[in-house]
Order: sequence, then C-alpha cells, then structure tokens
Amino acid sequence: MNKPGSVGAAQPRTMHFQEPLHFRSGAVLDSYELMYETYGALNEARSNAVLVCHALNASHHVAGFYADDPDNIGWWDNMIGPGKPLDTERFFVIGVNNPGGCFGSTGPASINPKTGKPYGSSFPVVTVEDWVHAQARLADRLGIQTFAAVMGGSLGAMQAMQWAIRFPERIRNAIVVAATPKLSAQNIAFNEVARQAITTDPDFHGGDYYELGVVPRRGLRLARMIGHITYLSDDAMMEKFGRILRSGAVNFHFDVDFEVESYLRHQGDKFANYFDANTYLLITRALDYFDPAGEHGGDLSQALASATARFLVISFTSDWRFSAARSREIVKALLDNRRDVSYAEIDAPHGHDAFLLEDPRYHALVRAWYENVHRDLAS
Amino acid sequence: MNKPGSVGAAQPRTMHFQEPLHFRSGAVLDSYELMYETYGALNEARSNAVLVCHALNASHHVAGFYADDPDNIGWWDNMIGPGKPLDTERFFVIGVNNPGGCFGSTGPASINPKTGKPYGSSFPVVTVEDWVHAQARLADRLGIQTFAAVMGGSLGAMQAMQWAIRFPERIRNAIVVAATPKLSAQNIAFNEVARQAITTDPDFHGGDYYELGVVPRRGLRLARMIGHITYLSDDAMMEKFGRILRSGAVNFHFDVDFEVESYLRHQGDKFANYFDANTYLLITRALDYFDPAGEHGGDLSQALASATARFLVISFTSDWRFSAARSREIVKALLDNRRDVSYAEIDAPHGHDAFLLEDPRYHALVRAWYENVHRDLAS
Repeated sequence: MNKPGSVGAAQPRTMHFQEPLHFRSGAVLDSYELMYETYGALNEARSNAVLVCHALNASHHVAGFYADDPDNIGWWDNMIGPGKPLDTERFFVIGVNNPGGCFGSTGPASINPKTGKPYGSSFPVVTVEDWVHAQARLADRLGIQTFAAVMGGSLGAMQAMQWAIRFPERIRNAIVVAATPKLSAQNIAFNEVARQAITTDPDFHGGDYYELGVVPRRGLRLARMIGHITYLSDDAMMEKFGRILRSGAVNFHFDVDFEVESYLRHQGDKFANYFDANTYLLITRALDYFDPAGEHGGDLSQALASATARFLVISFTSDWRFSAARSREIVKALLDNRRDVSYAEIDAPHGHDAFLLEDPRYHALVRAWYENVHRDLAS
Repeated sequence: MNKPGSVGAAQPRTMHFQEPLHFRSGAVLDSYELMYETYGALNEARSNAVLVCHALNASHHVAGFYADDPDNIGWWDNMIGPGKPLDTERFFVIGVNNPGGCFGSTGPASINPKTGKPYGSSFPVVTVEDWVHAQARLADRLGIQTFAAVMGGSLGAMQAMQWAIRFPERIRNAIVVAATPKLSAQNIAFNEVARQAITTDPDFHGGDYYELGVVPRRGLRLARMIGHITYLSDDAMMEKFGRILRSGAVNFHFDVDFEVESYLRHQGDKFANYFDANTYLLITRALDYFDPAGEHGGDLSQALASATARFLVISFTSDWRFSAARSREIVKALLDNRRDVSYAEIDAPHGHDAFLLEDPRYHALVRAWYENVHRDLAS
C-alpha cells in the first residue's frame, strides 16, 4: 500500500562485520554492525547506487515509512522516492546509520562483547574518515564497487567530500549541500557548549549512565535547543514565532511566555527522548575534527586534488551556520584543480535547515543533476 | 595616586530608599537600596550629570579602580575618565547597579526584611521601565533634575531609550550604542536556553538555593558560554582562536582540544564565581520584555513620539546579536518624529562586544558628541 511518491514501507537491515574496524584515533572495534536501508533496485551493471549520508541527528531511515509506524517518515523523504529528485525508479539508494550512532548500528549504547556491558565512555571517538571507511565496507558487501553518487547535507556533505577525496575511483558524483570544508571557531564553540551541557549533567556519570538507569536528559535537551537556534535563520525564526506571546501578555515569570520558548522546550524534550547523549558527543566531535585541508598545511585545493568526481555544491543564502562563503571555498578549491563543479546559492530564508526542506528551485536543481547522472549511466 | 586618564579610586555608595518601589508586574518592594558610584563633580547649575546604564553582567563600577583591589577596573573605563570621550573633568558621571542586580543593590540574594531570608524566587521580575523608574528616584535624591545625557550599550541602551520616552524633560541627550528596539525571536531563544540551563540545574532549587549552601554553577556557566558566543562575531572568533589546537593535535576526547573551548570554559567558570543565577534570569527577562512599540501596536515611531532628547545612535557592522538594521529602525522612528538624531555604523570586526572596546572611530565620535553637549552646557 504505497503512498504516492513514497518508496513505501522501508526495511531496515543489519549487516554484521566480523573483521576489525580501525579508527583514526588508533582505537579498534573487533566486530560491529551497521543498520541500513535500501530503496529501488540495483541494476545489472551495479552502476546506479547512490549513498545518502546522514547529518547530526538522523539515521539510515532516509525515505519511506515503517509498516508498523507509518508516521515515522524518512528524514529526506521529500528528496528521495519514485518520481522525486533522487528517483528510486532509476537509482538504488542506500541509507546507513554510522558507527557511533544510536539507531541500530554499533554505538556507545551497544554491548561490548568483551565486557558484556555497554561501551559507554569506552566507545572510540569517530571521525568522518572512519564513517566513510565503514560505508565503503558496506558497499563492498553489497557488491557496489562504484557509486553513481554520494550525497549529503551538512555533516552528510562532509562525508560526500571525504568519499571523493579518499575513494576517487569509487564515486562518480558528489552532491554537497549546506557544507563547509571545516568548522569555524564559532561552530566549534556551539558544539562545545552543547557537549558541556551533557558532560556536566549529574546524570552523565562520565558517559557510563546506561547501567545506572538514568540518562543525561537535561544536558541533551539543552544541546538540542542550542543546535536548533543555529539551524534556523534569525529571519525564519522571526517569521515563524516573532514575539508572539502564548497567553497574549507577558506573565512576569520564567516559564513559557513567548512561542519560541515553547517550541525550543518541545524540541529539546522530544530529542532527549530518542537520542543518545554519547552519540551526540561523538557526532559533534566528528564535526569539529573534519578538516581535510589540515594535513595539507591548510590548503584545501591540495586536499581536493585527489578528488575526480563531478561535484554539485549547493548553499543557502540565509544559512549562518555554514554560510555560502564556506561552500564557495570548496568550489574554488575544486576549480583550482580544474574539476567539474556546478555551484548554486539558493535564495532561501530558512537557514541551515533549508537543505531538508522542499524548496522548488533547490529540488529542481538536484532533479536535473540526477537526470544527467542517469543519462550518463545509460550511455 | 591616580593612573593617567583614570578617575582614580572609586567610592561605591549605598542609597537607601524607604518608600515602596512598584514594579510593572504589580509587585512591590517596600524598601530597597541602590549601590552607585559617581565620578567628577556636579556643577553649580546641576546640569552636567551623565547617567551610564549597565548591560547584562556589569555594575555600578563604571570607571576607575578600587583602592583595595586595583585590578578591578570599571567596565567602561576606556570611555570614561579625565580626558576620555566622556570627560569626568567636565561631567558628573553616575553608575548604578540596577534593582535585581547582584553587586550591592537590592536583589534576589538580599535579605527580605519581611521574612529574614533571601528574596530568592520571590524577588519581583524587573523590567527596563522599573530600572529607569528607580534610576530617576536616585537622580532625585542626588538633586539632579535633568541629565545632560543618559548613555548605554546593549541593554544599557534600552535604558537610555526608555529614559527619553518616559522622562523627556529630564534627559537632553541619549547615547544609544549597539541597541535594538526589541529582541528578535532568535535573541529570546538564546536567552531561553541560558535560563533553562540555570533552572534545570539540580542546584537551582526553584531559585531558593542561597540557604542551602549551593549555587547552580553548572547552569550559570553554560549560560555565560552561550552568551559569549553571541557577543563575538564569527570572524572575531576565527581571528582570535581559529582552529588552534591546545596541544598541536586532536586528542580524540571531549576535553579541551581547541583554544576556543578553553576560552569558553574559562569565561564560564569565572562568571559562575561572581554572578548570581537569579539575577541572570531577571536580566535576560528584562531584555525579552523590552518593547516600547508593543503598547503602540508595534509602531516604534509612536512609541518614540514623546522623546525629545537629541540622540546619538551607534551600531557595529559585525554585531549579529543586535545588528545595525535594528539600530536603523530606531533612527527611522526618530526621524519619523523629526527628532535630532545622528547615526553611525562603525565598521568594526568584534561583534556586539565592540561597544565595550576602544575603537578609535567609535570613541572619536562619542568624544565629539560630548564636546557639543559640553558647549551647550556653557552657552
């Protein structure tokens, strides 16, 4: 019973890996599992696979819904499905929960087979490089040598960039949305406050809270509230909430007076109910550490010299978290290498979150790009 | 033993008020005290007084130092002193800690004479209007009918605006720096996260923590860290900290890796040692509630119609907390009323904090303005 334009009921699957995963930090997981979903069909040439990489709080559940939970819609369902910009009638699309996550792949809440207890604070600090490494192994298992495209927004875009740098022969197109080549000091600062909110929560217990029957809810809630502010533009917030008062007047208290306060508390509470605090720490750290130019003396052009994929780079004018100027740095570095790159700066009011929204110009662009990718597959 | 350009050793004084202070909320303090400092001398005509209003975390200690604590320099000492832009050889300058504060004026940590215990959560929610009301009473006591100028930055600028609206006959000049006519949804959102950090700290105890021998340090620390990010521009943070690593390499942990993390933690710790959490709640709420246009159907021009003071409005290009556009709204509303207003947008990289820094163009402008104020006094 498909909904129109939907991939239908998604089937999350688990892939078990018995070989060790070596992390950039030097840490090792002897074995691990990845949770993933696929939509559409792999063609005979195995050439139509597209990997969709998730950002901070998302998962392998990229499109469709669950038969037993029909309101649980994939996080990029507006982009991916039959007849959608990334058309699952043409492409075989893969979403995967990264290692360290909290949606089924091995992460801090998983049981460490060596101790019989959750990893907790002992889970390795993961990096974008580690994720791409793990994703490449999953591709091997699925029999995919080369991706037609790797695509992502925000932190997902960092993974698409890293794919192009690390596995140039395995990726024909990189779609890099709302990206930055590295976090700014302000970006790191917001991540740090969120982490401090979590690690100073008395229920954090150094990260080993699972067996104590508590979660650092307060910290996680604050982390999400801070995050949310940075995902929206000042204008979008003003448009959405203004200074609207819940009861029509100020009440001279510290409870909710303004709609925006109610919204933030709700978002924080919701998030604290489903997300794992250790995963939040890991993912923000992966953001902080990503800096491909770092090992090239800060030269992004050198860092991208190995990349041969065609790039589509998209930014949004109102994104103040990863501003358009940061995307232009990526484009310039690609052009320095005479790479094939298209760049669009979409005039959208929604801030960083715009990459998840259904802006017609944005979606038309991605659609046109995939038309070309599809045409190239056939030729 | 004066330092050059310094007003010298400041003498904080307490003024006791036995008459009740009625708050906008309807609450009443039967009696209260205000802590204040003055610099320079009141002239015979009592016409050279300048009131300097403080912002979020500052106090009555505006200039000079303390004889027994010479490193405790007033927060606007670069602006105020002999030969400085606001020249204490010419003007009689007053700094006052607002009611609800934590630097000596009656506030949540003060003993409520009715109960013999600290006010704590029972301290009235204060507004900018209440502060101006209390400041006007202090002026009465000091024998000052009319201020040559009322001056402030950020929240202090809101008080200068409110003076011009409420007591037009008592203020000849309003100097309004890094201001906004009202907080945006994003501004309120940041305040809300800071308040939530404090009120969800287990040591907050609903605001009545004083007698329990604890303070909500964790919350206050986070609140300050969030605030700090909004006071600095992205560029200024990048200039100051970049992605500089404390030990030269990432360490794959959640402790300090980047300099900016160390800076934020240090600022948070320092603040939590001297600032009161209840005062933080009160002051952020006063910011949220200030909206003079509110009772005029959102029409700022109508709200400012009563103001007759000459205005100097100054904004800073890199201030993303209260952007230059917000200052331009104030200027437009004044021009709608054909008021005398000068406006300068200073090209400064430091963000909102620029109002506290010694930018030569900014200071030259304020100096020139006070030259004119002084000339008018003499004529």
